[in-house]
Amino acid sequence: MKIGVIGLGRLGRIHTTNLVQHVPEAEVKILADPRVEETEEWGRNLGDFEIVADWHIPLKDPEIDAVVIASPTTLHGEMLKEAVKAGKHVFMEKPLAHDLETAKELFETLSNVSVKIQIAFNRRFDHNFRKIKSFIDSGKLGEVHLIRTTSRDPHLPDIEFVKKSGGIFFDFMIHEFDTARFLTGSEVVEVYAGGSVLLDPRIGEAGDFDTAYAMLKMENGAICVIDVSRKAVYGYDQRVEVFGSKGSARAENDRETNVIMSTEEAVCTDKPLYYFPQRYMKSFANEIEAFVESVLEEKPVSVGVEAGYRSILIARAADVSARENRPVRIAELL
Amino acid sequence: MKIGVIGLGRLGRIHTTNLVQHVPEAEVKILADPRVEETEEWGRNLGDFEIVADWHIPLKDPEIDAVVIASPTTLHGEMLKEAVKAGKHVFMEKPLAHDLETAKELFETLSNVSVKIQIAFNRRFDHNFRKIKSFIDSGKLGEVHLIRTTSRDPHLPDIEFVKKSGGIFFDFMIHEFDTARFLTGSEVVEVYAGGSVLLDPRIGEAGDFDTAYAMLKMENGAICVIDVSRKAVYGYDQRVEVFGSKGSARAENDRETNVIMSTEEAVCTDKPLYYFPQRYMKSFANEIEAFVESVLEEKPVSVGVEAGYRSILIARAADVSARENRPVRIAELL
Amino acid sequence: MKIGVIGLGRLGRIHTTNLVQHVPEAEVKILADPRVEETEEWGRNLGDFEIVADWHIPLKDPEIDAVVIASPTTLHGEMLKEAVKAGKHVFMEKPLAHDLETAKELFETLSNVSVKIQIAFNRRFDHNFRKIKSFIDSGKLGEVHLIRTTSRDPHLPDIEFVKKSGGIFFDFMIHEFDTARFLTGSEVVEVYAGGSVLLDPRIGEAGDFDTAYAMLKMENGAICVIDVSRKAVYGYDQRVEVFGSKGSARAENDRETNVIMSTEEAVCTDKPLYYFPQRYMKSFANEIEAFVESVLEEKPVSVGVEAGYRSILIARAADVSARENRPVRIAELL
Amino acid sequence: MKIGVIGLGRLGRIHTTNLVQHVPEAEVKILADPRVEETEEWGRNLGDFEIVADWHIPLKDPEIDAVVIASPTTLHGEMLKEAVKAGKHVFMEKPLAHDLETAKELFETLSNVSVKIQIAFNRRFDHNFRKIKSFIDSGKLGEVHLIRTTSRDPHLPDIEFVKKSGGIFFDFMIHEFDTARFLTGSEVVEVYAGGSVLLDPRIGEAGDFDTAYAMLKMENGAICVIDVSRKAVYGYDQRVEVFGSKGSARAENDRETNVIMSTEEAVCTDKPLYYFPQRYMKSFANEIEAFVESVLEEKPVSVGVEAGYRSILIARAADVSARENRPVRIAELL
Repeated sequence: MKIGVIGLGRLGRIHTTNLVQHVPEAEVKILADPRVEETEEWGRNLGDFEIVADWHIPLKDPEIDAVVIASPTTLHGEMLKEAVKAGKHVFMEKPLAHDLETAKELFETLSNVSVKIQIAFNRRFDHNFRKIKSFIDSGKLGEVHLIRTTSRDPHLPDIEFVKKSGGIFFDFMIHEFDTARFLTGSEVVEVYAGGSVLLDPRIGEAGDFDTAYAMLKMENGAICVIDVSRKAVYGYDQRVEVFGSKGSARAENDRETNVIMSTEEAVCTDKPLYYFPQRYMKSFANEIEAFVESVLEEKPVSVGVEAGYRSILIARAADVSARENRPVRIAELL
Repeated sequence: MKIGVIGLGRLGRIHTTNLVQHVPEAEVKILADPRVEETEEWGRNLGDFEIVADWHIPLKDPEIDAVVIASPTTLHGEMLKEAVKAGKHVFMEKPLAHDLETAKELFETLSNVSVKIQIAFNRRFDHNFRKIKSFIDSGKLGEVHLIRTTSRDPHLPDIEFVKKSGGIFFDFMIHEFDTARFLTGSEVVEVYAGGSVLLDPRIGEAGDFDTAYAMLKMENGAICVIDVSRKAVYGYDQRVEVFGSKGSARAENDRETNVIMSTEEAVCTDKPLYYFPQRYMKSFANEIEAFVESVLEEKPVSVGVEAGYRSILIARAADVSARENRPVRIAELL
Repeated sequence: MKIGVIGLGRLGRIHTTNLVQHVPEAEVKILADPRVEETEEWGRNLGDFEIVADWHIPLKDPEIDAVVIASPTTLHGEMLKEAVKAGKHVFMEKPLAHDLETAKELFETLSNVSVKIQIAFNRRFDHNFRKIKSFIDSGKLGEVHLIRTTSRDPHLPDIEFVKKSGGIFFDFMIHEFDTARFLTGSEVVEVYAGGSVLLDPRIGEAGDFDTAYAMLKMENGAICVIDVSRKAVYGYDQRVEVFGSKGSARAENDRETNVIMSTEEAVCTDKPLYYFPQRYMKSFANEIEAFVESVLEEKPVSVGVEAGYRSILIARAADVSARENRPVRIAELL
Repeated sequence: MKIGVIGLGRLGRIHTTNLVQHVPEAEVKILADPRVEETEEWGRNLGDFEIVADWHIPLKDPEIDAVVIASPTTLHGEMLKEAVKAGKHVFMEKPLAHDLETAKELFETLSNVSVKIQIAFNRRFDHNFRKIKSFIDSGKLGEVHLIRTTSRDPHLPDIEFVKKSGGIFFDFMIHEFDTARFLTGSEVVEVYAGGSVLLDPRIGEAGDFDTAYAMLKMENGAICVIDVSRKAVYGYDQRVEVFGSKGSARAENDRETNVIMSTEEAVCTDKPLYYFPQRYMKSFANEIEAFVESVLEEKPVSVGVEAGYRSILIARAADVSARENRPVRIAELL
C-alpha cells in the first residue's frame, strides 16, 4: 500500500513518521507541500520520498493507494473531494471542514463512496480514553449519566492562528464534542455554551474566547459538561470522567515518569506530558495503523465522515449558543 | 457559655456531640425536640441535659447564651427571628429558609442585629476546601478562571424527603453555590442549570431531578461548573477544582485508609468516606468551635445571614433556569 | 471504671485526653507526676482531677480500677509490679522495660496474673495497619512472603534523650519489631541488623546509630526488612508493605488534606502528617478504648506482656547483631 | 555504522527491532543465530538481513562496525574476546559472564581496549530511574543515606532456566546491584544476603531461592536494602526509593493507562505494566541509541566492562553470604 501525504506541517509530519516507523504494511511515497525545501530537509533523515509542491501530484499517481490530508482547514473540502474522485482512500485531519455548510455537503456527498475516509479524531485511539470506552461497552459503568471533560493547552497559540482558527469551539472543543459522541454512542440534542476572555485581550478582539465551557444534552439522557482553556501553566491537561449507574471511570493525565519526590517543601510528581505530540503520541500511531488496516482488510473505518460532520454541527450550535446566550437545539441547524 | 439545641435530628446530634467533645468553652444545657423520649435515650450517654419538647423553652431561659437551630427547614425563619428577639446568638443550619421570600426578609431584617448568627455551611471549614481557599488567598493560583465542583451522595434519599426538600437546587446544590461564593470571593451574576431523572422515576413525578448541573458566571469573570447526583454507587464523592492563571488546586476524596492493595485483578484503594457524617466530621467540629469563638471573643462570624440568603437566591435562579431552559440573571430576582 | 494516670509527659497526656474525650465508660480520677504544677496547669482545661506527685497514691486508692503507666522506661518494671500487686489493671506504655533481663522477669512473673495488662503498641490500632492485617487474616494476601517497613522521624531527638533511650533498636525500631509479629502472627527466629551515623556525630559518640536497618527471619518463612531514620526532612514517614502469594498491601502515609496543587514548577500534595501525635492520633484513642473494653467486658487484652517481652528480645538480638556484625538467633538469648 | 546481532532470543530481537525503528544512524546487516529458520521468519517483517548460523561471520565481515551479543551467558566471555580481537565495538547483554573468574579476566584484559564495550544494564536508561539519578546528581536529595529496591517478576521462570541461570543473585538481583552502584556512584564494601524457597520447591531442589534479600553497605556510608521475588501475582513490580538528607525520591510502577475506576467494590487502577519488554521498552531503545552515539561520536560508553564485573563481584558476595549466613566483604573476593 503506497501513500502520499498532503501538508507537511506538524500533524503531517507526525503521520508520516508514524507510517514509516510503525506501519510496515504501508510505504510513504510522496510528500506534497508548497514548502518543498523545508520538507526535504525534514524528510531526509526519515526516508527516501518524492517531494513535490503540488498536492494534485499524489492524486494523479496511479501507484498511490491512499492520501493523508493534513493541510490548512480551508483546503480540506476541495482536497477531500478531489482525492475521492481520484479513487484514493483518505486519512483526513480534523476538522472535516472550516464551516458547517461545507461539512454538510461533504457528509451528504461522501457518505456512501467506496473508498475509505477516516477522520483523524486521534483521541478515540488514546490508551486512556479507550480504556474508559471499554468499561462503558462492557457494561461495567452501567447506564452513562454524566461525562466531564477538561482540556487545557500548555501555552497560548499565536494570535494569527487564533484569527484563522474558526474559534475555540471549532478548533479546540471539537475534540470534546467527538469524545462525547464516542463515549456515549449517542447524539447531541442540545448545546449550551459560553466563554470568557481571561488570558489575552487580543483573543477577545478577534471575536473569540480563551476560556470556554459547554453543556451537551445527549439523546440517551446523559449530560456532558466540558471546560477548556487555552493555557494551563502546569502543562497539557487532558482529563475525562464518565459517571454511570454502576460506577465512575476517569482518565488522569499521563506523566513522563512515576517518580515521587518528597522534600521539606512538598511531595511532588511530574507535571502532565507537555503537549499533544507527547501526550497523544501513541494515539497518532494507533489511528494511522487502524486506517491502513481498514484499507488492507477492507473493513469499515472506525471514524468516518459522519463523525467529522456531526462534531462541526455541535461546534456551530455551541458558537450560536455562546453568541446568543441561550441553549441551542441541534435540530435548529439541520 | 451555655447552649440550647433545637432539633435533634442527624445534624442536631452531630452539633451537640461536637460541643460536648470538642468545645470545652461551651456547655450544652437544653435539648429541645418534640421527640423527647428518643432524644433522652440518645443523649443519656453523652451528658446530663435538660430535655424538652418545646423549642421556646431555651429561648426563654435567661441562662442560655446561644442556640443551635437544626429543625426542619420550614421552621427556620420563625425560630431564627424568635431567637434573635430573645437576644440569643444563633448557629443556624442551612438552608436559611425554605423559600427565597423568607430568606430575603431574614436577610433584610437580621443583617445588622447585635447577636451573632452563623449559617452552617460546614464545607467552608473542611480541611481540603480550606487549603484550596488558602492557595487562592495567598495568590498561588493567580486569578481564578474556573471552578469545578462535583457532589454525589452514596444512596438515594427517601422519596418523602425529596418531596419536602424544596428540590435538588435548594436542598443539595446549595452547598455548591456557597462554595462558589466562598472560593471566588465574588458574587454570581448569571445561572444556567438543568437536570435529568435517571435514577428513580418517582423523583421526576415529584417534580424534581436526581442528576443536575449548573453553570455560574461570577462577577469577577470566573466560571463555575457544577454537577451533582443523588447516587454514586462507590460512595460520597466530593471534589472541587479551582483553576487559575498560576495553577490549579483540586481536592480529591478522603478515604478511611491509605492502603493500596495489589492483586491479580487490580490495584485498589479504599472508596471515599461513606457519607457526610464521616467525610465532613472535622468540618462540623470546626464550624461550631468557630461559632463559640466568635461569641466569646466578640468577633464577626465567618458565614453570616447574607451567605444564607445569597445561596438561596442562586438556588432560585437555578430552579427557574432549569424549568424555563434559559440562563437566568440574578438581577432578575432582586 | 476509675483510672489513675502515672507520668504526665507527652504520652500520658495523650492517654488522659483520649480517656476524657473518647471513653465515656472510664473516668480519670488521679494524675500522678512529680511535676505537679505543670500537670495542674495542663489538666485544668480538661477536667477535674486529683493531682499528686507520688505514683503510689493511685495504687493505694481503693476506688481506682486501673492505671495508665507512662513514666520513664527505667521505672516501668517496678511500677508495673506494684500495680499488679495492688490489684489494678494496667495500661503500660512501651517498651515494657529498659533491658531484656527486666522484661524477661516481668514476662515470667506476670503472664498469668488475673488483672489485665495491655502494652501500648498503638500501631496495632492504626487504621492503615489494621486494614493490612485484615487483608492478611481474610486470606486475601495468601501466604505472607515479605514485610517491608519504613519509619522515619521528622526531626532529630534531643541528644540527652538519645543517651538515655537504650539505643535505636530499643527505643525506635521496637515498633517495627512488634509490627512484624502482629502482621505475620509468627515469631522471629533470627535477626541481622546494623546502622550508620549519618545525621549527627554526637549520636555516634553516644554509642548509637541514627540510621538503621534489620532483617528478621520469621518462623513461618516470611522475611521482614526494616529501615529507619531519625530524620526525614519531609516529615514523619510511616509505611508498611506486606507481600504475599496472592497480592501485596501497602500503607502509604496519611496527609492533612487530599489537595493536589499543579503549578508551573510541579504537581504537589501535602507532606505526611507531621509526627506521631498527628499520624497516630486515632490509634491512641482506639488502643485505650480497647483496654477499657477489655476490663469492663472481661475479655483478654489484644497486646499483652508477651508482646512487650518479645519485642525487647528482638531489639536485643538486633543490638548484638549490629555490634558483632553477624546474624543472631533469638534462641541464643533465651 | 553497520551492526551484526549475535543471538536472536528475546533480548536480541528487542535490540534488533530498536536499532531498525529508533536508530536511523545504524543499519543491522547480519543476524547470527543457530536457529536460522526461526530467525528468518521473525526478521522477515522487520527488514532485509543476512541471516547466518555461525556467530564468527559478523566478526569476520569487514563491513561490520559493531556487534550486539545477546547469546546465552556461558558464551559471553568467548564471544566478547573474539569480537574485540576482530576490532568490533560491542554491545554486550548482561551479565558480563557466568562466573566471577571469567568476569574478572574480562575486566582485566578488556578495560583499556580501544573499541567501545557497553554492558546492557538497561535500567540505567529507564525514565524513572534516570529522573531519580538526576535528583541525586543535582544535589536535591542531599547526601544519600538509604536505597530501597524491589523487583518482582509476574510469573515463575521455567525450572530448566532456573537450573542454568547461575542463581537468583547472578541472574536476577544483578540489576539491583548495578542500580545501587549507578545511583550512589559508590562501591559496595559489604553484602549480607539470603533467601527462601516459598514459591516452588523445585527451585530449592535446584539449590536456588525464589525470594531473596540483600543489604549492601556502600563505601560512602549509604545502605542499600534489596528484596526480590520470582513471582508477584499482580505483575512486574519495579520500585526504587532513594532517601537522602534533603529528601526522598521514589519510582513507582508504570501502568498502561491512568484510568481510575470507582465501583461499589473499590477504587482501582491498572496493574503495573506486565513484564520487562513492556516496562523497560523505552530504556532498551535508549541504551542502544546511546551505544551507537558513543561509537559515532567517539565518546566513552556510560556502562562499561567494569560495571559488568563489579555487579558479578557483588552477586558472588551475596551468594557466599546467603550460603554461609554471614556478611561478606567484597575485599575477601578480590
